[in-house]
Amino acid sequence: MKPKTARKKPVILITNDDGITAPGIQNLVEAVKDLGKIVVVAPDKPQSGMGHAITIGNPLRLHPVQLFKDIEAWQCTGTPVDCVKLAVDKVLHRKPDLCLSGINHGSNHSINVIYSGTMSAAVEAAIESIPSVGLSLMDYSLEADFSASRKYARIIVEHLLQNRIDKHLILNVNIPALPDTLIKGLRICRQAYAKYEEDFVERNDPTGRKYYWLTGRFVNFDKGKDTDVWALEHNYVSVVPVQFDLTNYVLKTKLEKTWKL
Amino acid sequence: MKPKTARKKPVILITNDDGITAPGIQNLVEAVKDLGKIVVVAPDKPQSGMGHAITIGNPLRLHPVQLFKDIEAWQCTGTPVDCVKLAVDKVLHRKPDLCLSGINHGSNHSINVIYSGTMSAAVEAAIESIPSVGLSLMDYSLEADFSASRKYARIIVEHLLQNRIDKHLILNVNIPALPDTLIKGLRICRQAYAKYEEDFVERNDPTGRKYYWLTGRFVNFDKGKDTDVWALEHNYVSVVPVQFDLTNYVLKTKLEKTWKL
Repeated sequence: MKPKTARKKPVILITNDDGITAPGIQNLVEAVKDLGKIVVVAPDKPQSGMGHAITIGNPLRLHPVQLFKDIEAWQCTGTPVDCVKLAVDKVLHRKPDLCLSGINHGSNHSINVIYSGTMSAAVEAAIESIPSVGLSLMDYSLEADFSASRKYARIIVEHLLQNRIDKHLILNVNIPALPDTLIKGLRICRQAYAKYEEDFVERNDPTGRKYYWLTGRFVNFDKGKDTDVWALEHNYVSVVPVQFDLTNYVLKTKLEKTWKL
Repeated sequence: MKPKTARKKPVILITNDDGITAPGIQNLVEAVKDLGKIVVVAPDKPQSGMGHAITIGNPLRLHPVQLFKDIEAWQCTGTPVDCVKLAVDKVLHRKPDLCLSGINHGSNHSINVIYSGTMSAAVEAAIESIPSVGLSLMDYSLEADFSASRKYARIIVEHLLQNRIDKHLILNVNIPALPDTLIKGLRICRQAYAKYEEDFVERNDPTGRKYYWLTGRFVNFDKGKDTDVWALEHNYVSVVPVQFDLTNYVLKTKLEKTWKL
């Protein structure tokens, strides 16, 4: 007989923006698979830079895939945010206990949180009252070493499962591209004001017409030592708590005082 | 001889997410065209729900169009955020003094600020130190009456041009679908915690395979009288100051205290 106090395994939804075949999501599943019942719903193709895009004018498809040993997995034709919505409504038929997104190939610190499909999936989960964590390794390559990332993913997930957490919790976790022995640990941070300075590359197609490639140079305007950029530069894993209330309360108070309505 | 104190006309960049042929952007241009030098750079097709998506794996095109009398206008193959980036780097070759996005056909209050291409264009401008305003009329139809929207767009732009404003200012302005005589005025608000409860419609294609359409029911979980949803329900134009720092500072302080790192 099962003891009455036996806790059910938590349900953990895993998604990403690099697509379901990316090594990063494989590593995330491996890192946490014994901590809960894992279900994967992820895009069928790369969706980097998709931000919080949702699919409005087109229908979505969902196909089961056998990419992860003994784990239910579905690939979706939509964006990372679509994946979270479809997972809750049509795959799980309930809210999971936790949503993990990643491990992204490449950083999502500072302003990248806004452009990132990885982080937008996490934000979407929290909007739907599912605590969530987005994880990104600062290495774009397909052969990136995810061992330190796996260790920290597990530490964070264990902590969240063992403690009472806010249903709207979102963590933006970035891991330096370093061997575990060189990483100094976790550091709670704020989002740095650091961004890309755009510089489009202009080219001509074979018929002579111009086209543009988005490129950019990363610039940190923020000298604070409490930022994610500072933490990563000093070999910490950065953890930024994120919110989806975008109200600028400081400006709100100021406008209420100064704007004669 | 021009007096030395003569102020140059401010440069106003106008974009949207419904596409450059939408009546909403035509109305916005008409509403403010004598207040500055207007340049339009907008998507060549509808981009609703694109959030803060940027185009990474594909090049972008920019084509001049003659849709607005005596006003320089370009249509872009990218997202609303791409339009802002390209406008600054390749059309204006400088930061405009103000960026306006809209007038959107349909509301962008509460959580919609995150999904909205209209608001993401405004947010992108502010990230690039360009004060910005996103405007949305609560009427989806192509035949919507924009007269009250035009009036309020003008009031807001005049106010911003006459006053010293923060370079990171973003305003999310929503206008009720009412005749001007019934609108009670502007109201500074916070973003309501109100969202769509998803319910995907499941269908079968002619070969019997399933596909899904995103639909949803709007639910307001927020009973505050200081929200945009409350203001709109009470016939005010809602003005929510928005920010791009997504750090949850309350949770940051809490985690710093409770999380043994």
